Amino acid sequence: MKVLVLGAGQLARMMALASKPLNIDVRAYDVGSAQVVDPLSPSVSYGSLAEGITFADFITAEFEHISYDVLAMCEASGKLFPSSQSIKTGGDRRLEKVLLEGAGIANAKHKVVSTKADFDAALNILTLPLILKSALAGYDGKGQWRLKDKSEADAIWQDIQAFIEGDTSGQSQAIVVEQMVPFDREVSMVGVRSITGETFAYPLTENHHSKGVLSVSLAINEHQALQAQATDAFDKIAKGLNYVGVLAIEFFQVGDSLLVNEIAPRVHNSGHWTQQGADTCQFENHMRAVCQLPLGSTTLVRPTAMINILGADSVPNSILDIPSVTLHWYGKTKRAGRKMGHINVCGQDRIELINRLTQLAEILPKEDFPDVGEYINSL
Amino acid sequence: MKVLVLGAGQLARMMALASKPLNIDVRAYDVGSAQVVDPLSPSVSYGSLAEGITFADFITAEFEHISYDVLAMCEASGKLFPSSQSIKTGGDRRLEKVLLEGAGIANAKHKVVSTKADFDAALNILTLPLILKSALAGYDGKGQWRLKDKSEADAIWQDIQAFIEGDTSGQSQAIVVEQMVPFDREVSMVGVRSITGETFAYPLTENHHSKGVLSVSLAINEHQALQAQATDAFDKIAKGLNYVGVLAIEFFQVGDSLLVNEIAPRVHNSGHWTQQGADTCQFENHMRAVCQLPLGSTTLVRPTAMINILGADSVPNSILDIPSVTLHWYGKTKRAGRKMGHINVCGQDRIELINRLTQLAEILPKEDFPDVGEYINSL
Repeated sequence: MKVLVLGAGQLARMMALASKPLNIDVRAYDVGSAQVVDPLSPSVSYGSLAEGITFADFITAEFEHISYDVLAMCEASGKLFPSSQSIKTGGDRRLEKVLLEGAGIANAKHKVVSTKADFDAALNILTLPLILKSALAGYDGKGQWRLKDKSEADAIWQDIQAFIEGDTSGQSQAIVVEQMVPFDREVSMVGVRSITGETFAYPLTENHHSKGVLSVSLAINEHQALQAQATDAFDKIAKGLNYVGVLAIEFFQVGDSLLVNEIAPRVHNSGHWTQQGADTCQFENHMRAVCQLPLGSTTLVRPTAMINILGADSVPNSILDIPSVTLHWYGKTKRAGRKMGHINVCGQDRIELINRLTQLAEILPKEDFPDVGEYINSL
Repeated sequence: MKVLVLGAGQLARMMALASKPLNIDVRAYDVGSAQVVDPLSPSVSYGSLAEGITFADFITAEFEHISYDVLAMCEASGKLFPSSQSIKTGGDRRLEKVLLEGAGIANAKHKVVSTKADFDAALNILTLPLILKSALAGYDGKGQWRLKDKSEADAIWQDIQAFIEGDTSGQSQAIVVEQMVPFDREVSMVGVRSITGETFAYPLTENHHSKGVLSVSLAINEHQALQAQATDAFDKIAKGLNYVGVLAIEFFQVGDSLLVNEIAPRVHNSGHWTQQGADTCQFENHMRAVCQLPLGSTTLVRPTAMINILGADSVPNSILDIPSVTLHWYGKTKRAGRKMGHINVCGQDRIELINRLTQLAEILPKEDFPDVGEYINSL
């Protein structure tokens, strides 16, 4: 079996690593160079997307911000899973909101804004504080503004206007203005859906962010009611998209209720713990779904957490002395804040896991992991 | 970190897969073509061993039947782990027996035989039935004879003589004549030793062979006395060799005692279950030892078994419906009896594992897995 992944970053790399044992040959389309590469070596496989499409039995994506031209070419081949509509919905907050509203899934109160008049109208309807997010190409905290006081509105609108005018994607940009949700914590669910509509959801994950970027994920398996609520949302969203593959949903937890923050039509950073903590990892399950193989069990094997390595290209070797610690480097060049790798760690029970996380936090340098210790101490 | 593996088969491939997340770049020296290749792609990296040695920070091996010239070249670079002496000992039953006797480790009563006169003398000292094994280049049942009755001795000697004369290795061949051990079962231990002498042993594995080739392995964690006995043998043998890396020891179990059958100075087929069943898999632990990183915990995560795929290049997809079943193909061309891949399966406890093994045996075709069902039913 041969699979082309749109995007050639760490997610394509980890898909390729999970695919080798299944004899699935994965190549990645690098949108920057417009070449098809081997995600496990620096070698170029094909010089064009068209050749990559011909090579592949199936095509999938590692990110949602893909030009519509590329998606159209792939979809025309009949090999693209999930569909271009699923990918576009993940990449456009307007489509995402329409999907959530249509499926009756709780999410933050919001308005779509394109003009100053829309913006002023939204300010009159919504309750401050607000979070303003670009409809397209916003992730990891980019293209986001916070409005706490009406006096800041004009200055923020000028910023937004410059942002919209600077958009060179050729697609129509807009802003989704949302009421800030006073959430207790952020959780996410990664799940997988087959072409026949079968779904399996992984246990919910508690996510700790730092400056808008995921820092620590912790698989939580002890809240059956929350798990059921999230699974219901997952099933509705995945069905609404006629989705094939792994899909991630980020939620705000407020009391005992979950509100969808956003969806990602792909394997997700908050699911990296599944490499060591689940019966089948998210990368293998995505490939199983895309290649129309049976889905794998998503059962938690043992409590597991993940720590992102951001902007650092080394960690002390002594972390490998801690049992069950697994290092996952992405082979990327160091850049401030860049996702360079992650660390997975497991324990037979939550207490052992937290002990090991505490040991990790003591070893990891504060300058590279500024808030990890504080979060772990709060567990 | 860059590692050259001597040998370019499935063990090098699985070492490379386990090494990618650690940012360890693995290349493999294919002794057939005398080229250095990328074990994860068909590409040739270097045209000669010398270039491969220059590329590498460390050198290791996936098999023990390597020409002494190659070993000498690698050892001269100061990068070879384990040492050439360790590799040679695994590849020569004479050296192996000297090591075991020297360390006072129980093994089958035996004589080394080079001439008809040696052979006749051995027949007078040892008790039938006997197993005769070539000192060099014997594995998976090749270069082995069984002598049950003295009347067969002349015919077998003629066979052996032809075998010795046909040896083109340039090394002195001989036969180790051993008393057959009336064993209850075959078990093995895989363990790892660091350059500083630290050792970690995995749980013992029960091995079921079919026609001399490993068919099923089952991690067994419930016999503390046996585990202690095997660990003691492992520590003595590894220390005797001043070993660095993963080392496997095959034992005959007779009652509550273990006799060493043979050692393998490398990752081992009976340790493949560690990919899903242990805190750190044998491939990663070998690389950690060779690259002088901290060793990983060898703790059993949950009961796990492995089934070899021999001579078949497909299995029914429906085995992937069984939770925790993981397929590992080696990407090799099909040939009768060839090791093509393996299947790992886990359970939260032994009962769940055996239930899943039973489901597997019902799906796997009898023609490709002739004796697996019978063995699993016997558990």
